[in-house]
Amino acid sequence: MRTTPAEGMNDFLPRETEIRDRLMEQIVKSYRSYGFTKITTPIVESIENLDNSDGGDNLKLIFRVMKRGQKLENALQSGDPGELCDLGLRYDLTLPLVRYYSNNRTKLPDPFKCIQIDRAYRAERPQKGRSREFVQCDIDVIGSDSLDSEVELITVTAETLLSIGISDFTVRINDRRALRSVIESAGFDPADADSVCITIDKLDKIAADGVRAELLEKGFAQNAVEALMSILAGGVTADDLEKYADPAVAEGVKYVIGKSTELADGKYGIKYDVTLVRGQGYYTGAVFEIESPAFGGTIAGGGRYDGLIGRFTGENVPAVGFSIGFERIFSILAGGEAGGGRKKIALLYDEGQIAEALKFSASLRDGADVTLVKKKKKLGKQFGQLEAQGFSEARFLGEPDNVKVLGQNQ
Amino acid sequence: MRTTPAEGMNDFLPRETEIRDRLMEQIVKSYRSYGFTKITTPIVESIENLDNSDGGDNLKLIFRVMKRGQKLENALQSGDPGELCDLGLRYDLTLPLVRYYSNNRTKLPDPFKCIQIDRAYRAERPQKGRSREFVQCDIDVIGSDSLDSEVELITVTAETLLSIGISDFTVRINDRRALRSVIESAGFDPADADSVCITIDKLDKIAADGVRAELLEKGFAQNAVEALMSILAGGVTADDLEKYADPAVAEGVKYVIGKSTELADGKYGIKYDVTLVRGQGYYTGAVFEIESPAFGGTIAGGGRYDGLIGRFTGENVPAVGFSIGFERIFSILAGGEAGGGRKKIALLYDEGQIAEALKFSASLRDGADVTLVKKKKKLGKQFGQLEAQGFSEARFLGEPDNVKVLGQNQ
Repeated sequence: MRTTPAEGMNDFLPRETEIRDRLMEQIVKSYRSYGFTKITTPIVESIENLDNSDGGDNLKLIFRVMKRGQKLENALQSGDPGELCDLGLRYDLTLPLVRYYSNNRTKLPDPFKCIQIDRAYRAERPQKGRSREFVQCDIDVIGSDSLDSEVELITVTAETLLSIGISDFTVRINDRRALRSVIESAGFDPADADSVCITIDKLDKIAADGVRAELLEKGFAQNAVEALMSILAGGVTADDLEKYADPAVAEGVKYVIGKSTELADGKYGIKYDVTLVRGQGYYTGAVFEIESPAFGGTIAGGGRYDGLIGRFTGENVPAVGFSIGFERIFSILAGGEAGGGRKKIALLYDEGQIAEALKFSASLRDGADVTLVKKKKKLGKQFGQLEAQGFSEARFLGEPDNVKVLGQNQ
Repeated sequence: MRTTPAEGMNDFLPRETEIRDRLMEQIVKSYRSYGFTKITTPIVESIENLDNSDGGDNLKLIFRVMKRGQKLENALQSGDPGELCDLGLRYDLTLPLVRYYSNNRTKLPDPFKCIQIDRAYRAERPQKGRSREFVQCDIDVIGSDSLDSEVELITVTAETLLSIGISDFTVRINDRRALRSVIESAGFDPADADSVCITIDKLDKIAADGVRAELLEKGFAQNAVEALMSILAGGVTADDLEKYADPAVAEGVKYVIGKSTELADGKYGIKYDVTLVRGQGYYTGAVFEIESPAFGGTIAGGGRYDGLIGRFTGENVPAVGFSIGFERIFSILAGGEAGGGRKKIALLYDEGQIAEALKFSASLRDGADVTLVKKKKKLGKQFGQLEAQGFSEARFLGEPDNVKVLGQNQ
């Protein structure tokens, strides 16, 4: 039997779980205080939905679940590997939400402001050091095409990060349509804009020279490539967008940046970034990302995906969401103290006294978590062990006034 | 695209999620107050571990995850369907716990008292109406062979059920070894005891006549079958066990029943039941189950599984656990009120006032969850909708003293 978790999966120790649970609790509490309501969706979705969800590179990372019974037999006989699976593990929380909304919309408020905090799965290459099982924290507004929803999501996500002690971050904002306009104004064919975007998305990793080289390699005209690189090198502000983009798009970006900056009130940064792409193919308008140097890069991302719900319902419903990458935040905060938990008392009892011990522990359990522990012969050694396990007090059955305070000699 | 969840999977609405979250929170709080600590294990385990885990019929219900990339290519070319998958979704929380303990034991206290509340998966036949994704709430004590651990688990689980408002239940207790002794004393070969147990386990469903018929059908000697049926018909009390079982086993059952009855103190029932089997093959000693007529049967089950950890570590470590079936409890309690949540306020604002609305909402958010809602022309209709969504108050941006109390006319 294999004792380590499956590749890329994680065991979390009691102390780690305590920190994770407390972080999730605080995030949900903050989201809820802005009137968002939490929902639960299954981890397993039909493979057709996942495969057709326009999730960019994530589609290559889907864990596929095999058919069972006679259906599996039939699939094996057909000889077509594509027929072998009928389900898959979700790679993010957006596709499940879109399906959920399509399935339950008559029972949901309009607009629907919702929270999901849950696991997703991606079969990342092990050498990348990324977890294959991870928690995302999403809020979404479905049914509103108002840019106020963008402002609300940005503000609520940023305030939530502040509430869990993260303060050194900047929200980068762009609009997919603005970037496309810049690309087209450089002389690219509109049909090539998506391909150009995919390359620009690598700017962080391969820098400007790498982007130029890849665009040329893709066979685009040298003029267009140089024109684009020159625009990007010069920098594009939200005000500059008037020169490139549809006036409504340019105004929209300025509106979101302006209101978000006002609400940030100097507590965190708001920045326009024309090179921000976000990988998913389903984004149609605003895209945003939160980056924090202390957390080694991107800790949250999102955007508007007005077309996705229409694939289920046939009727376009506007939607926008923002997702916090929980694992990155946890990996940094896990270095800190669990703290803030309830007092931990060890109640020592003797063989044969279990019933009395459980009864007596009720009187202590009001203000503390009480662990029943059998008394050992070497009490001094036992106190040391209890101390190491985080107990602040040892009590003794039948001696209500005897309190051994632990951790005093450290 | 498919809008309904995958077969046997569930979408939970905001109100349902609120009830589920509050139930889980209360259960964890109760477990923690007895000094158990929560851990987190992955949903995905290696398929070898799952296949070799002695989980009885559950092994047939494992969702199998396909290999990826070159390994999948190789498996497809090998033509062996058994080679196609390398991972699976866990069917309960015990196997993951045993692997976790084996992997982390040097970092864990001894004995280790732990909590898991998490999802598991079983590919049940859809017509059975069972969910294929479900939450279990487990507590386990690892590293203690004392019967006090049985008493502690029974008491903590029962008190936890009481704490979430469930009171009409009985804990049934047996010991695998006691039942085997009874079977052997009726004249069966010890080697056949497991097979006989599997049939006795169906007593609830097929009654005594069905059990007799199945045992005869399995080809067991008529004398033995009749002797066994006669013992079972006569009833076997914990005191009777002296006649059949090893004295230590008989004494042990009486100890657990006695202490548990003392601790139950009339708040719930404790009952010896010689016919209690529990399906899993890994149980080695005590087994227990909680049944509640109001909840349509079994709502919790567990037992001692001293051999399971040894399969990983080569060294036997005693262990015992008790698991609450969360979905059954939820399905009944979901009929009740969500209640107890924070006050819900709708803050109505006009176009262009998003920044002011978010700023003003901060002053209300201390004692309530505040949802920003754009003001509609037909205010009366909007109040009705807000009321239906569970808001107790509407407020208006710029009119701090104007409070519209909702739900007064009902």
